[in-house]
Amino acid sequence: MRLLRFGPQGEERPGLLDNDGRLRDLSGVVADIAGETLLPDTLARIAEIAAGGALPVVAGNPRLGPCVGGVGKMVCIGLNYSDHAAESGMAIPDEPILFMKATSAIVGPNDDVVLPQGSLKSDWEVELGVVIGRPAKSVPLQSALDHVAGYCVVNDLSERAFQIERGGQWVKGKSADTFGPLGPWLVTADEVGDPQALAMWLELNGERVQDGSTATMIFGVAELVSYVSHFMSLQPGDVISTGTPPGVGLGMTPQRFLRAGDVMRLGIEGLGEQRQRVTA
Amino acid sequence: MRLLRFGPQGEERPGLLDNDGRLRDLSGVVADIAGETLLPDTLARIAEIAAGGALPVVAGNPRLGPCVGGVGKMVCIGLNYSDHAAESGMAIPDEPILFMKATSAIVGPNDDVVLPQGSLKSDWEVELGVVIGRPAKSVPLQSALDHVAGYCVVNDLSERAFQIERGGQWVKGKSADTFGPLGPWLVTADEVGDPQALAMWLELNGERVQDGSTATMIFGVAELVSYVSHFMSLQPGDVISTGTPPGVGLGMTPQRFLRAGDVMRLGIEGLGEQRQRVTA
Repeated sequence: MRLLRFGPQGEERPGLLDNDGRLRDLSGVVADIAGETLLPDTLARIAEIAAGGALPVVAGNPRLGPCVGGVGKMVCIGLNYSDHAAESGMAIPDEPILFMKATSAIVGPNDDVVLPQGSLKSDWEVELGVVIGRPAKSVPLQSALDHVAGYCVVNDLSERAFQIERGGQWVKGKSADTFGPLGPWLVTADEVGDPQALAMWLELNGERVQDGSTATMIFGVAELVSYVSHFMSLQPGDVISTGTPPGVGLGMTPQRFLRAGDVMRLGIEGLGEQRQRVTA
Repeated sequence: MRLLRFGPQGEERPGLLDNDGRLRDLSGVVADIAGETLLPDTLARIAEIAAGGALPVVAGNPRLGPCVGGVGKMVCIGLNYSDHAAESGMAIPDEPILFMKATSAIVGPNDDVVLPQGSLKSDWEVELGVVIGRPAKSVPLQSALDHVAGYCVVNDLSERAFQIERGGQWVKGKSADTFGPLGPWLVTADEVGDPQALAMWLELNGERVQDGSTATMIFGVAELVSYVSHFMSLQPGDVISTGTPPGVGLGMTPQRFLRAGDVMRLGIEGLGEQRQRVTA
């Protein structure tokens, strides 16, 4: 299933995209695509109802919100593609690097990205987002994927000066409002297949700058879910963003950063596309 | 007012402690001590109703939950007391160091602290918690305190090996379940007076190990609220934990860390006390 949230910011309703690409309203079935809605039993119930074909079709072309609501925490993985670590001038990590993005940064997939006050070095990062569906605490590698509800596209926007030059701890450069577009939809794990074989890309003003694959992750999805769950418990609706392949502005010569008027388009195979306009 | 939440974990109800020290039930007035309940108008309405004296008294001695529910984010400040920076062997920072604690770590003030699997270096940190009451985005220093609903005691528990020896980014050592006791109550800002003149202490098995004052913070509360709000927007119910004074186990010679069976008691002047038993 392709689950999504549509409507004005803060008033999103749950929906899904059916096999014919029509937007269907789920608000008669669940309150939101969030938290316990992502438990396996609830997803199975939604799938059954969707198969019945009676869900109302939504007219028009409403705004899409972040594909998961009420995200409890957004855990990000740093330097998880060997080529990206190299372009950032950092060593390949021995174990996953974790940092947080403030959940207040989360927006819809096509909402404007607003550069924060004083930003000179805002950068893009296409990433595979892993949405937790079943609580996970110290889970072993072998069963880690049982805790995943599905996957989505994330743009892990990053202000590099705030992240690196302002006194340690990357969260400072990752958390500005609008720095976490999620979506367009959450594709349930059963429809994604192998999460380590997905092409991913990002275009800046029509120029392809990132062109990679989840096949080159240093630590794969199962390993990350298991690893993170040993340091903090994960709840349904939490998101792990799994790192970015090469091609960010920080790694270019000369370096290149976002300016008002830029347009980003990004996508992951089978998970849809995002498009953001950059504003000051 | 002293606002609190009481009842079993996950089913807490809102309450307050009246001037005679009696627990009063607020569940007929607000749904929770969380989010928009902390807006100035709502707090004023609660104060008015409380003054009427008609709120039901709660019988018995129920468990206290974290004094704020549904915390959107918990932003912590590192090395914010000059003596603590020295004992940790770290330089005094030029600007505040920010890191996150996973909100899933938050528990009640007297709940057990459970050492995570493999923990050998878990440590205590008494801290002044600042609870946001009015949304804050890039707010100036002069008006920053207008965005504070009140204050509470925080124990910012920290697994030092996870924090420092496991590949960067402190969040890894700060986020285990039970590593964020909040409370016993949220004292509204009007009753706290000057947040930079509060004695604070922590005792381990009856021995006083931390004995400080918010007077020796490097960056004060107003500066921190303003500073953080420039990197991420703050919402009602977000918590900023403002750093710890000297006396943590990491800074002792020899170093000393928590073991199953230890008991911590900690408090801040006017904000009440916490007591946690440590379990494996």
